[in-house]
Amino acid sequence: MNTRREKDSLGYVEVPAEALYGAQTARAIENFPISGLRANPFLVRALVLIKLAAAKVNGDLGLISSEQSQAIQQAAQEVLHGQHLDQFVVDVFQAGAGVSLHMNTNEVLANRASQILGGNLGEYAQAHPNDHVNYGQSTNDVFPTAMRLSALLALHELYPVLESLTEGLETKAAEFDHILKSGRTHMQDAVPIRLGQEFAAYAVAIRRSKTFIAEASAGLRELGLGGSAVGTGINTHPKYRFAAIDLLAKLTGEPLIAAEDMRYAMQSCAPMASVSGALRTLALEVVRISNDLRLLSSGPNTGFREIDLPGLQPGSSIMPGKVNPVLPELTAMVGFQVCGNDAAVAMAVQAGQLELNVMMPTMAHNVLQSITILSNTLRELDHRCIRGITANEARCAFYAQSTVSLATALNPYIGYAKAAEVVKESIATGRSIIDLVREKGLLTEHQISTILDARAMTEPREKEDA
Amino acid sequence: MNTRREKDSLGYVEVPAEALYGAQTARAIENFPISGLRANPFLVRALVLIKLAAAKVNGDLGLISSEQSQAIQQAAQEVLHGQHLDQFVVDVFQAGAGVSLHMNTNEVLANRASQILGGNLGEYAQAHPNDHVNYGQSTNDVFPTAMRLSALLALHELYPVLESLTEGLETKAAEFDHILKSGRTHMQDAVPIRLGQEFAAYAVAIRRSKTFIAEASAGLRELGLGGSAVGTGINTHPKYRFAAIDLLAKLTGEPLIAAEDMRYAMQSCAPMASVSGALRTLALEVVRISNDLRLLSSGPNTGFREIDLPGLQPGSSIMPGKVNPVLPELTAMVGFQVCGNDAAVAMAVQAGQLELNVMMPTMAHNVLQSITILSNTLRELDHRCIRGITANEARCAFYAQSTVSLATALNPYIGYAKAAEVVKESIATGRSIIDLVREKGLLTEHQISTILDARAMTEPREKEDA
Amino acid sequence: MNTRREKDSLGYVEVPAEALYGAQTARAIENFPISGLRANPFLVRALVLIKLAAAKVNGDLGLISSEQSQAIQQAAQEVLHGQHLDQFVVDVFQAGAGVSLHMNTNEVLANRASQILGGNLGEYAQAHPNDHVNYGQSTNDVFPTAMRLSALLALHELYPVLESLTEGLETKAAEFDHILKSGRTHMQDAVPIRLGQEFAAYAVAIRRSKTFIAEASAGLRELGLGGSAVGTGINTHPKYRFAAIDLLAKLTGEPLIAAEDMRYAMQSCAPMASVSGALRTLALEVVRISNDLRLLSSGPNTGFREIDLPGLQPGSSIMPGKVNPVLPELTAMVGFQVCGNDAAVAMAVQAGQLELNVMMPTMAHNVLQSITILSNTLRELDHRCIRGITANEARCAFYAQSTVSLATALNPYIGYAKAAEVVKESIATGRSIIDLVREKGLLTEHQISTILDARAMTEPREKEDA
Amino acid sequence: MNTRREKDSLGYVEVPAEALYGAQTARAIENFPISGLRANPFLVRALVLIKLAAAKVNGDLGLISSEQSQAIQQAAQEVLHGQHLDQFVVDVFQAGAGVSLHMNTNEVLANRASQILGGNLGEYAQAHPNDHVNYGQSTNDVFPTAMRLSALLALHELYPVLESLTEGLETKAAEFDHILKSGRTHMQDAVPIRLGQEFAAYAVAIRRSKTFIAEASAGLRELGLGGSAVGTGINTHPKYRFAAIDLLAKLTGEPLIAAEDMRYAMQSCAPMASVSGALRTLALEVVRISNDLRLLSSGPNTGFREIDLPGLQPGSSIMPGKVNPVLPELTAMVGFQVCGNDAAVAMAVQAGQLELNVMMPTMAHNVLQSITILSNTLRELDHRCIRGITANEARCAFYAQSTVSLATALNPYIGYAKAAEVVKESIATGRSIIDLVREKGLLTEHQISTILDARAMTEPREKEDA
Repeated sequence: MNTRREKDSLGYVEVPAEALYGAQTARAIENFPISGLRANPFLVRALVLIKLAAAKVNGDLGLISSEQSQAIQQAAQEVLHGQHLDQFVVDVFQAGAGVSLHMNTNEVLANRASQILGGNLGEYAQAHPNDHVNYGQSTNDVFPTAMRLSALLALHELYPVLESLTEGLETKAAEFDHILKSGRTHMQDAVPIRLGQEFAAYAVAIRRSKTFIAEASAGLRELGLGGSAVGTGINTHPKYRFAAIDLLAKLTGEPLIAAEDMRYAMQSCAPMASVSGALRTLALEVVRISNDLRLLSSGPNTGFREIDLPGLQPGSSIMPGKVNPVLPELTAMVGFQVCGNDAAVAMAVQAGQLELNVMMPTMAHNVLQSITILSNTLRELDHRCIRGITANEARCAFYAQSTVSLATALNPYIGYAKAAEVVKESIATGRSIIDLVREKGLLTEHQISTILDARAMTEPREKEDA
Repeated sequence: MNTRREKDSLGYVEVPAEALYGAQTARAIENFPISGLRANPFLVRALVLIKLAAAKVNGDLGLISSEQSQAIQQAAQEVLHGQHLDQFVVDVFQAGAGVSLHMNTNEVLANRASQILGGNLGEYAQAHPNDHVNYGQSTNDVFPTAMRLSALLALHELYPVLESLTEGLETKAAEFDHILKSGRTHMQDAVPIRLGQEFAAYAVAIRRSKTFIAEASAGLRELGLGGSAVGTGINTHPKYRFAAIDLLAKLTGEPLIAAEDMRYAMQSCAPMASVSGALRTLALEVVRISNDLRLLSSGPNTGFREIDLPGLQPGSSIMPGKVNPVLPELTAMVGFQVCGNDAAVAMAVQAGQLELNVMMPTMAHNVLQSITILSNTLRELDHRCIRGITANEARCAFYAQSTVSLATALNPYIGYAKAAEVVKESIATGRSIIDLVREKGLLTEHQISTILDARAMTEPREKEDA
Repeated sequence: MNTRREKDSLGYVEVPAEALYGAQTARAIENFPISGLRANPFLVRALVLIKLAAAKVNGDLGLISSEQSQAIQQAAQEVLHGQHLDQFVVDVFQAGAGVSLHMNTNEVLANRASQILGGNLGEYAQAHPNDHVNYGQSTNDVFPTAMRLSALLALHELYPVLESLTEGLETKAAEFDHILKSGRTHMQDAVPIRLGQEFAAYAVAIRRSKTFIAEASAGLRELGLGGSAVGTGINTHPKYRFAAIDLLAKLTGEPLIAAEDMRYAMQSCAPMASVSGALRTLALEVVRISNDLRLLSSGPNTGFREIDLPGLQPGSSIMPGKVNPVLPELTAMVGFQVCGNDAAVAMAVQAGQLELNVMMPTMAHNVLQSITILSNTLRELDHRCIRGITANEARCAFYAQSTVSLATALNPYIGYAKAAEVVKESIATGRSIIDLVREKGLLTEHQISTILDARAMTEPREKEDA
Repeated sequence: MNTRREKDSLGYVEVPAEALYGAQTARAIENFPISGLRANPFLVRALVLIKLAAAKVNGDLGLISSEQSQAIQQAAQEVLHGQHLDQFVVDVFQAGAGVSLHMNTNEVLANRASQILGGNLGEYAQAHPNDHVNYGQSTNDVFPTAMRLSALLALHELYPVLESLTEGLETKAAEFDHILKSGRTHMQDAVPIRLGQEFAAYAVAIRRSKTFIAEASAGLRELGLGGSAVGTGINTHPKYRFAAIDLLAKLTGEPLIAAEDMRYAMQSCAPMASVSGALRTLALEVVRISNDLRLLSSGPNTGFREIDLPGLQPGSSIMPGKVNPVLPELTAMVGFQVCGNDAAVAMAVQAGQLELNVMMPTMAHNVLQSITILSNTLRELDHRCIRGITANEARCAFYAQSTVSLATALNPYIGYAKAAEVVKESIATGRSIIDLVREKGLLTEHQISTILDARAMTEPREKEDA
C-alpha cells in the first residue's frame, strides 16, 4: 500500500496515500481494532451537517476565510450526497467521547476542501482539520450535538413504520370486529371479546409507543454546539452558536434550539437515556404483541389456532410442512436486543465525569442500532405478517361458547357465589353454562337470550330488569 | 388466636376473629409468605379511592343500594384518613395481577361497611366484597388503574423534592459563580470554567429530569377503569366509567381521563415502563452528579478538594477523623437500585399475555419504591449536603492557573499545532504556559493579558485583533 | 423518649436511653430515613460472627483484655441466639460501604459487653466500639467479609428448596412418563414427546441451576478479613486474619479461606456479581418453567389443558369459578425481581474506586433479598403447585395423534420434500397423516404400525429396513 | 444478476445462479433485511463442525451413502479452512431458533457436496440439504449445540488475552512494589499503601475473572446434539449422538459430553446466561480498573497524577497537547456494551417455550460479540497501555506523607477518640500528624519512627511494646 507521511502533535504517522483521512484517523485504526463495526450512517451525516453549519457561520463571521468556508461546505455536501462514505473508518468502539470519529470527519473534510482549493492530501495549508474545519469547535460540543441530531434523523425512519404498522393493525381490527371469541386472562377462560377488539388494542399500543418516543426525544433538540471545550464557548464568537444551530434547524427540518446551559448539554447525556428508554418501551410492547400472535396462531392442531399467519418460509429442517411465526419471533429477538442496548446506554449515561461524558460513542451506537433494527423489523412485521393474517372464525366461535366465564354475566342477577357454583358444576360435568342455568331455573328464557348473549357481553350495557 | 370461619368458592377458611379482611386474604397470607413486604401505602390509597368512586357511582346508578354505597364510601374514607391500614396484609409478591391485594381491599371495605350497616364481620349480607364493593369491577381493570394512580400520587412527593434540590443547586451556582477553576475532560486538564457554572449545570440536569418524568408519566392518566373483566366493560353501566373517573379526577386533583381503548389500558403496562424509564434517567443523573461531588471533595490532602461537603458522621471505624461523602454515596446506591427496579419493571411489562398482564404487582412495587427512595434520598442530599457545600477558592484558583489547557486560547492566533508545542514544553519543563508564550514572543503583553485571561475564557468572546 | 448523651468525633448526639446502639447509629437514623427497610438478618448474623471471631483472636493475642474478649463474645452469642435484633436499626440505604450498619454492630456489642462487665450504656470505658469491639478491624475489611459470609449463609436455605423442587419435578416425571403428547416448537405442532420427559427436563434445569449457583458462589469463600483499612492489614497482628478466618470456618461450617490478596478482596466485589448472576440464571429458568406450566394448564375450555394445577384461591373478583395459576405467576414475578436486583448489583460492582467499593450495602441487600424470595417462592411452588399437578391423559393423547409433525418419521423413508406434501394435504383437508400415507401407499401397513407409532418416536431408534 | 430457480415446500424461489446457498437462504435474505450484520465466524465454524461430525457418523452407520458422507465432510473442511465464508449471508436477526442460518449451512454444504459429486448447484439429487446434510438433525438440536460450541471456541481467544493482561499487571506490580503512596477509600485520604500492591490486586481481579468464566462456561460442554426435533432423538440412530459428540470433542479439543437429558439441553439456554453473566463480571472488573487508571493518571496539573499512561493519540480537537486515557475509556465503553449484551441474553433465555427456545440467535450474537470485543479491547489495553505505565514517585511519596490517615496507626496506643482529635487539628491547621504527635508528646521519638513509619503500615505487624 502506498502511504504518505503526516505529522500530528505526537509525531509522524503513515497514512494511505489516497486516503481523505489523515494522521489521527490512522492512529485510531491502529489503536482500536475492536469490533469491525463502523459508525452508523446517521452519525456521520450529523457530524458532517455540523461541520457544514460551522464552516458557513465561521466564514460569515470572518473567522475562517471565505474560500475555506466555501470549500469545507462543498466537501460536506459531497458527503451528504453519499460520496466519501468509505473514508469514515473508525471502529464503533474507539477513543472516549468519539474524538477519533470526530477527527476522522475533520480530516476527511479538510483534505477534500484542500483538494478543492488546489492543495494536496495531507498538507492542510489551505484547510486544516483543527484550525479551519474545527474552528471554534471541540469534540466535546460537536459529538454531543451529533449524537442527538443523528438520533433525531434516524427517528424520521422509524415514525412512518410505526404509522403504517398502526394502520395495518387497525385494518385487521376492522376486518375482525365481528368475530366473537373468548377472552383469556391468566391464560384461563375469561369472558367473550371480539378478535377485532384485540387488534384495535394492539394498534393503540403502537400509536402510544410512538407518542412516548416523540415526547421522550424532545430533549434531543436542545443542542450544546458552541460550548466548545468545556461548555464555556472558549474560542467561539458570541453569535456563532445561535447562527449555527439555526442553520442546522433549517438543514434538517427539526426545531432545534441552542442549549439554555451549554455546560448541561455537554455534561449530561440524559436525553439519550430518555429516548433509549422510550425505544425500550416500544420494544416491550412489540415483544408482548408478538408473543400474543404466536399464542393465537399456535397449532395447527395442538394449539389455539384462532388466527393464521402468512407462511414465509419452511419452518423446520426436520419437520416437513412446518411453518413458524418467524416475524413475531424476529420481533421478540429484536425487542430483547433493544432492551440490551438500552442497558448499555444507561450504564454509559451515568458514567459522565465533570465537564464531559466520554462514553458517548457507546450511546450513539446503541440508540442508532435500536432505531434501525426496530424500523426494519416492524416494517417487515407489518408488511409480511400483520397484513396477511386471517382468522379462523369457527374456532373463535367455539371458544366464545365454551368459556366457563360466560357465567360472569350472572353476577348482577344471582350473585358471585351462586354463579361460581354453576361454573364448578360446568367444569366437573362438561355441561354448558346455559344448560345449567336453564335446568336450575336461574334465569328466564328471555333473560338467557339477553343476559347470556356472548356478543352483548363485549360492550358495557345497562342491567336488565328482573 | 381466635378465628372465625368464612367460605369462598373453594371452601372454608379460618380468619382471625377481629380481622376486617376475609377468606381470600387469609388464603393469600398462607399462599404467599415470600418477602415480608406489604403493599406500598400509595397503592392501598389508590385502590381505596377507586372503591370509593365505584361505590358512589354504582349507588347513583341504582346498581347497589344507597345504604351500601354510603357505607362503603364511609369505610373507604376511614382508610384514606389512616385507619385500618394494618388490615392490608398481603405480601408484595402475590397472586398474578394483584388479585389478592384487590380482594384484601374488597374484604376490608365490605367488612367495615357491614359493621357500619349493623352487620357482623365475615357475614357480608349487607355488603359483599364481590357483589357490592366490587360491583362492575374486576382486578383486571381496578389494579391497572390503581397502579397508575398510585404512581401519580407518589410523584406528588417527588416533585417538590426535585424543585428544592434544583433551587439548592442554583443557590450554590450563584454563590460559586465568581470562583475560577480548571475544567476537566477525560479527567485531564481542560480550559478554565467557573465552579458556579458547574453547579448551574447540575441544577438544569435536575430540572430537566423532572420534566422528563412529568412527560413520561402523562400516559398514566389514561385509565381503563370500567373495562372490568377483559376490557369490554361486562357488567358495567355505560355511564359508569366516565362518572367514576371524573370523580377520581376530582378526588386526586389529577386530570384523569377514561381510556380511549379499554382493552389497551388493560393489556398494556407501557405507561409504567415509561415512567420507570424516566425515573431511571433521573437516577442516572444523580449518580453522575454524586460522583462529581465525590471527586471534587476528594481529599483532604490527597485529592482535588475544590469543595468541602458538610461532615455528617464519622467516616471510618478505624481511620480517626475521616469524614466521608455519605450522602453522595447514598445517592449513588439508591440510583443503582432505581436502575435495578427499572429492569424488573421492563421484564414484567413485556410479559403480558392476551387480555391481561398479570405481572403488575412487581411493577407497582418497583416503581413506587423507586419514587419513595428517590424522594427521601434527594431530600436529604439537598438539605444535609448540597446546601452546606463550601468552596476552597485558593485551590480552585491554583488549578485555574496551572492547567496546561490555557494554551487552547492560543489556537486562533498561532494555530493548534504550535500551541501543542507550547503545551508539551510546559509539561516537560514545569514552566507555565504564560511564561513560555512570553519568552517565545508568541503574543504581545497586551494580548497575554486579554487572550490568556482565564476568566475571559469562561464565556464566548470575539476574536482579538492582531 | 428518654435519651442519653453520647459524644463521637463530630460532637454530641442524643441516643435513646435504653438503646444498645450509640452515637453513630443515632446519626445514621437521622441521616438515612430512606426506605424503612432494615438489614437482612443474614447480614447481621455475619457481622456478629465476625465480631465474635475477632474478639476471640484479639483476646488470645493479648491485644484486648481477656475480660473484654469474653464479654464481647458473650454479647455476640446473645445476638446469634436471637436477642437484641431490634437494635440493628440502620436503613438498608445508608452510608457508603455500610459504615453505619458496621458501627451499629460495634456499638450494640460494646454496650452489651459493657453491661456484662458492669458498666453503663454509652460509657464504653470497659468495652469501646472502636478500640475493643473493632480492634484491628475496619468497615473496609469487615463489610466485604460479612457480605460474602451472609450470602453463603443465606444459600444454605436455598439449596434444600432446590433439592426438594428437583425431587418434586422428578416425581411428576415418573408419574407422567407413560403419557404421550405432542411436542411443540415455535408454538407449532411438533413430534410426539412424553409428558414425563418434559418434567424430567425441568428437574434437570433446577439441578443444574443449583450447580451454577454453588460454583459461582465459591469465590465468596475467599475472605479479606484482616485487611483492615485499605487491605494492608494496618493495626492487625500477622497471625490474626488466619486465626479469625479459621474460627469463622468452624462457626459456619463453610470452607472459608484467607484471601490470597487482601487488596483484591477489598477492592473487588466480583464474587457478589458472580453469585448474583447465577441467581439470575436460576430465575430465568423458573420464569421459563412457570410460563410452560401456565401454557400447559391453560383452559379449562379455551386452552391446552394438558395438565391441571391445584386450585389455591378464587382467581377473579368478577369471574366466578375462575382459578388461576397463582404460584407460577408469583414465580415469574419473583424471577423478574431477581433479574432487577441483579442489575442493581452489577451497577454497584463496577462502581468501586481505588481501595474500596462503597456500594456494598446495595449489593448485600439485593443478593440477600433475591435468595430469600427465591427460597420462599420455590418452596411454595414445589409444595403447593408442582406436587399437586395432575395430567389430562385424554387431551394429551388427542394431541399426540393429531400433530401434523407425525410426518417427520417419514423423512428417512420418503424424504423431507414428499413428507412435506403429505403435511400440506393434511392441513388443507383435515385428514390424518396416517390416512394419507395409507391412501397414497407410501408405507406398508407394517411400516405404518412401527414407523408412525407415536410412542416409538420418543426415543432414538434404528432405521427400519425397507 | 443471473439466477436459478429452486423449489422448497412453499414454492419456487430465485437464487443467484452461482450461490452455494439455496431456496431457504434466499427467502431469509428477503425476509430479514434487519441489521446488515452476518453470523459471527465462530458460529459458522461450530455449525460446520457439527455437520462434518454428523456426516461422518451417519455415513459410518449407513444412513447416508459413503460418497455423500465423504463429499459433505470435504465441503465442511473447505469452510473450516476459510473457503465459502461469503456464502453465509443470513442476517444476525432472523427466523426463530436460527432456522435460516442452519438451512444456509445445510444448503451451502449440500451444494458444495453436490459439486464434488459431479452434480449441479440447486439440484440436490446427490446431496440434499435436509435429507443428507441434515440427516437425523434438526435446527432444534443443531443450533443449541452450535451456540454452545461457538462460545467455547471463542473463549479460546479470550483466555490468552486475560493471561497476558494478568502478567502485564503483575509486571507493573513488581516494578511499583517499592512506591509508597496514600490509599484512598470513599475518595478520601486513607492509610498508606504501595502502588505495586494496587496493581497486584488488579492482576488478581483479572485472574479470578478468568476462573469465573472458565467455571461458568463448563455447562456449555453438555451438548444436546442427537435430540433432533424435540429432544427425543426422532430419526436418529441410538449410537449417533455419542459418536458425533466424541468426534466433535476430538475436532475441537474440548471435553464435550452428550447431554444427560436431551430435552433439557434443547429447552434450556441457561448455560448461555451463565457464561454471559461471567463475561459481565469480567466487564465490571475492567470497568472498575479502567476507572482507577483514569483517576490515578488524572492531570497532568489538576489531578492525582500518580501514574502516566502512554500517549497514543492527540486527545482533543481543540485543546492542544492534551492526551487522554483512550484505552481505559475504550475499556469502559466495551464493558458497558458487554453488560448490555448480557441483558439481552437474559431476556432471551427466559423466553423459551415448551420444547424449544427460539431466541437463540440473539444469545449467540451477543455472547460471541462480547467475547470478541473483550478479547480485542483487553489485548490493546494490555499492550498499548498497561505495559507502558510509568509512576510518578515523587507525587506518590508526597501523598504518603500528607494523608491525615497516618493517625490510624495511633489507635492501638492512644485510642481512636484521641487520634481523631489529632486529625481534626491537622486538617484545621495544616500541620502534619507527626508534628502534632511530637508536640503533644503522645509518642516517644522511637515510637514515632516505628509506629508512624508509612512503609511499615503497609503490612500487618505486631504491636509495639509501650
